[in-house]
Amino acid sequence: MSERVFIAIEDPADPRIAEFSQIRERDLTGRSGRFIAEGTVVLRMLAAAHAAAGDFVAEKILLLKNRVDGVGDVLAAFPADIPVYVADAPVLDAIAGFHLHRGVLALGRRLSVAAPADLVARLPETSLVLVGCGISNHDNVGSLFRNAAAFSADAVLLDETSCDPLYRKALRVSVGSVLTTPYARGGSSEAMLASLAEAGFAIWALSPAGATELNAITAAGRMALVVGTEGDGLPATILSRFATARIAQSPHIDSLNVGTAAGIALYSMARAMGRIS
Amino acid sequence: MSERVFIAIEDPADPRIAEFSQIRERDLTGRSGRFIAEGTVVLRMLAAAHAAAGDFVAEKILLLKNRVDGVGDVLAAFPADIPVYVADAPVLDAIAGFHLHRGVLALGRRLSVAAPADLVARLPETSLVLVGCGISNHDNVGSLFRNAAAFSADAVLLDETSCDPLYRKALRVSVGSVLTTPYARGGSSEAMLASLAEAGFAIWALSPAGATELNAITAAGRMALVVGTEGDGLPATILSRFATARIAQSPHIDSLNVGTAAGIALYSMARAMGRIS
Repeated sequence: MSERVFIAIEDPADPRIAEFSQIRERDLTGRSGRFIAEGTVVLRMLAAAHAAAGDFVAEKILLLKNRVDGVGDVLAAFPADIPVYVADAPVLDAIAGFHLHRGVLALGRRLSVAAPADLVARLPETSLVLVGCGISNHDNVGSLFRNAAAFSADAVLLDETSCDPLYRKALRVSVGSVLTTPYARGGSSEAMLASLAEAGFAIWALSPAGATELNAITAAGRMALVVGTEGDGLPATILSRFATARIAQSPHIDSLNVGTAAGIALYSMARAMGRIS
Repeated sequence: MSERVFIAIEDPADPRIAEFSQIRERDLTGRSGRFIAEGTVVLRMLAAAHAAAGDFVAEKILLLKNRVDGVGDVLAAFPADIPVYVADAPVLDAIAGFHLHRGVLALGRRLSVAAPADLVARLPETSLVLVGCGISNHDNVGSLFRNAAAFSADAVLLDETSCDPLYRKALRVSVGSVLTTPYARGGSSEAMLASLAEAGFAIWALSPAGATELNAITAAGRMALVVGTEGDGLPATILSRFATARIAQSPHIDSLNVGTAAGIALYSMARAMGRIS
């Protein structure tokens, strides 16, 4: 293997690192499939995803000069032909458009995107799936993936009104779980849930007004948990068509954060299914 | 009751709204006890706290001009002598130092601070308490309060290395629960836990390496859940002295977000204690 070469960047406008420019305000994802991985933990997950030759590859890395030694073991996990650019703090901050105290960035690319129905068709006989409808907050999408991974969910499905989980902040909050948990995004929530119902999933829509408390849910071989936006929750069209679950809580409180609520429900369902112990 | 007067602010340097200046970068809390409430939900909680004549009062309100009508019902809950300042978007953004799309701010003041031991001494005979050690991330502290409120905890105790829950972001993430859940902050975690143990609390330290899975914890009349920082978790001095609990989860994942983990554990303990159903 050839020796890794570090490329010094002294001009924030250097075209070789253009994808890292002003990353706070914009997002690269969309048709290009490119995304920003931020921080050491996510960089490590990207290295593992790249090595696994799955849906994601790394294209380039940009580091704060004084972080190079600290992430040496993570860099060693990338092929030597992935360029590593290095900049001083003022240059790096000028590139990113804000103070990047972590000083660790990478550009990744998603190679393929599964359609929700195709992902459902590939799920194992015993499955736990998390479905997000209208999750437009990046932190919440990241939190959903982190919890799906923690409780061994097989996949995350997001409807077309949910935000892209590869957005920089969503990926960071997921601590990289977006790169390891199979997911699909697109279409209406009705279409997603119809394909899950056809595939034999017991579908539970989570709502503060749900009919069945979590602990009374009967385990099934294939289970799907459906969560909605924090403000309005799931639409009545979904709550009226599927079984509804609620989390016992204080009557004085409106509702939990959607990521926390999904975490509690996934924990309860994964335990009932005997997937975690 | 006199008619409410709205005071137009045209100069971002107007001394009457100086406390709202550059609020992203600084925090007012500390000896003055003042804090920034942001957003309609927190403003509503501040109105309720003010009316309850407890630990918190409102001092002034600053609104984006086009939000005035939308928060009319919340304003009506404040006494008419609380000044309400109104500004256009460019002035408001110049005051705050960043784009405030919510456009709803208030200045509150904490009137009294309980010492941890005094708060413990006042707890009811049957109690559930959440203890945070070294929780320095504002979002995580806010999330702990939101979950403590959701699961009917009687109090939150924070050690001296945890951040102030009245920090703007912590208060916002708590959706105002910091104003309704009794709390104390200060001293070492060892001192806090000693006072809880003396008061007859069954103390459970949460850790991915905990000995007892949540569902195997025996309910007690007085229970305390102890959580630590996300990176290092609780120190060995605590884990070796008290009973330890773990949340069943995938073996491939390091750990949950501390707010989510506390939410799952509080849910489980509150159910076991028969406090929620």
